[in-house]
Amino acid sequence: MTITAETPTAIHIGADELPWVDIGDGSKLKVIQVKEREGLWIVENIFQAGYVVQKHRHTGPVWGYTVSGGWKYQEYEYVNWAGSFLYEPAGSVHTLECIEDNTQVWFHMYGANLNLDADGNVESVIDGAGTLAYYYAMCEATGLPRPNVLVD
Amino acid sequence: MTITAETPTAIHIGADELPWVDIGDGSKLKVIQVKEREGLWIVENIFQAGYVVQKHRHTGPVWGYTVSGGWKYQEYEYVNWAGSFLYEPAGSVHTLECIEDNTQVWFHMYGANLNLDADGNVESVIDGAGTLAYYYAMCEATGLPRPNVLVD
Amino acid sequence: MTITAETPTAIHIGADELPWVDIGDGSKLKVIQVKEREGLWIVENIFQAGYVVQKHRHTGPVWGYTVSGGWKYQEYEYVNWAGSFLYEPAGSVHTLECIEDNTQVWFHMYGANLNLDADGNVESVIDGAGTLAYYYAMCEATGLPRPNVLVD
Amino acid sequence: MTITAETPTAIHIGADELPWVDIGDGSKLKVIQVKEREGLWIVENIFQAGYVVQKHRHTGPVWGYTVSGGWKYQEYEYVNWAGSFLYEPAGSVHTLECIEDNTQVWFHMYGANLNLDADGNVESVIDGAGTLAYYYAMCEATGLPRPNVLVD
Repeated sequence: MTITAETPTAIHIGADELPWVDIGDGSKLKVIQVKEREGLWIVENIFQAGYVVQKHRHTGPVWGYTVSGGWKYQEYEYVNWAGSFLYEPAGSVHTLECIEDNTQVWFHMYGANLNLDADGNVESVIDGAGTLAYYYAMCEATGLPRPNVLVD
Repeated sequence: MTITAETPTAIHIGADELPWVDIGDGSKLKVIQVKEREGLWIVENIFQAGYVVQKHRHTGPVWGYTVSGGWKYQEYEYVNWAGSFLYEPAGSVHTLECIEDNTQVWFHMYGANLNLDADGNVESVIDGAGTLAYYYAMCEATGLPRPNVLVD
Repeated sequence: MTITAETPTAIHIGADELPWVDIGDGSKLKVIQVKEREGLWIVENIFQAGYVVQKHRHTGPVWGYTVSGGWKYQEYEYVNWAGSFLYEPAGSVHTLECIEDNTQVWFHMYGANLNLDADGNVESVIDGAGTLAYYYAMCEATGLPRPNVLVD
Repeated sequence: MTITAETPTAIHIGADELPWVDIGDGSKLKVIQVKEREGLWIVENIFQAGYVVQKHRHTGPVWGYTVSGGWKYQEYEYVNWAGSFLYEPAGSVHTLECIEDNTQVWFHMYGANLNLDADGNVESVIDGAGTLAYYYAMCEATGLPRPNVLVD
């Protein structure tokens, strides 16, 4: 019994193969990979200064790789400038705010975002499957073909 | 550069090393391992016939290994008898109901349980960190020392 | 954007749905789930007393749930009796030896087993894909239909 | 029983907080995070044109985010230019070759690299723990203080 002779193939998605969709005020989203059953979702964002993502709690770990620009969590002092690494453990809670225009970030996420109201109650839930459905719908609404997101 | 000479040690927890706490009507819980930052929680339950766990959605994958007895999800026909395996993908939704007394199950879980009301809204959230806090509190309330759960 | 309305279905495999194949001297293997691309493999074993698994290093974490009997790693003192839990971190190294007949264990594994010779060199590698191929071949060789292992 | 009130903190590592070490011919390595027990290792590389990484098989999944430059696997046609995404499933096998100077890539990896000789035998093994030890040693050898890699 040895390792199998068949080898799975690496999957490459070039920078221009998937479209950006607008998520408000010129900020953008691209959904790269969703393994719904694993709870994995990988997205890329371009945020404009002032863009805010509602305070949320993560149910799984998240990694953020900032490519350009700068953004922060309102709860922390530090700024994620280009080249910075961020590890968000499961259970972490924060409110994203973009500081510089054209801030580009990879997010590698497990689990769901539990969006919290001012009292800390769960107001809504965003996960990979929902985000993928949103991405498909936004592409369709703007006349784009269904993007070839890596879905398994 | 080769693999490290130091090797991490396997951690063993014997059947009687952690106490069972009562979760109602003679059903019981034991918390074995919680990696809070990973969103991992491993518990063992002994359920009595008629015990129900509120309808919930998982934000990560879950595995269930049934050691004895029988239980089911109200949404599915099959029964998890002794020796059965269950894989619950992230996003799956169900209502646990125990059928036989002394049904013993290992659950190996990632992420959170989003407890749903009759309209499908998130009524409450249970995760590994919260379950661990509950387990500690139940042990303390019944005069037991803090159990040696594997926490990292 | 909310969580998706479609919900993945939990997958149940009953105790008698997959065959045991002989792995020597009456010890047995059942392969339950292999997610090759994730490196996940879940198997169940029934070992007979004296059965030994070559010393190996794990490249990912492993969990073992012992249902009946008793077994140990030669490198450690403790015995995994029925009801015991075992967590083997990535990088851990050990030699399995079964102590009691009809020792039944679930193994929930990520990554590969690097089988080591007496000098600590990697002599061979076993992973989920290879074990699945072996399981299929053993079933075929004994006239059994291809078992319905959960492969994605 | 609700989600815990304590929330883990996100960990930020700025672009200049960890040193680059030379891995030959001006190519560089920075080790960002190693969760040894999970088999997780996250590194950043700057490769120079012509740099080659020996053919290897991964025992867990790997993701690559290319920030600048261009590189490829000799086994595939496509080039990973700036902004490209790469998913390498567990079991995939390839030989990295850098095409452009100052090619910068994040690698988010689970498991080990099994380095293969011309006959496909495992010649050596590289994992997160070993790479961390190498990184520490290289820093020490060049008079740098022990870098504050995120190790748990």
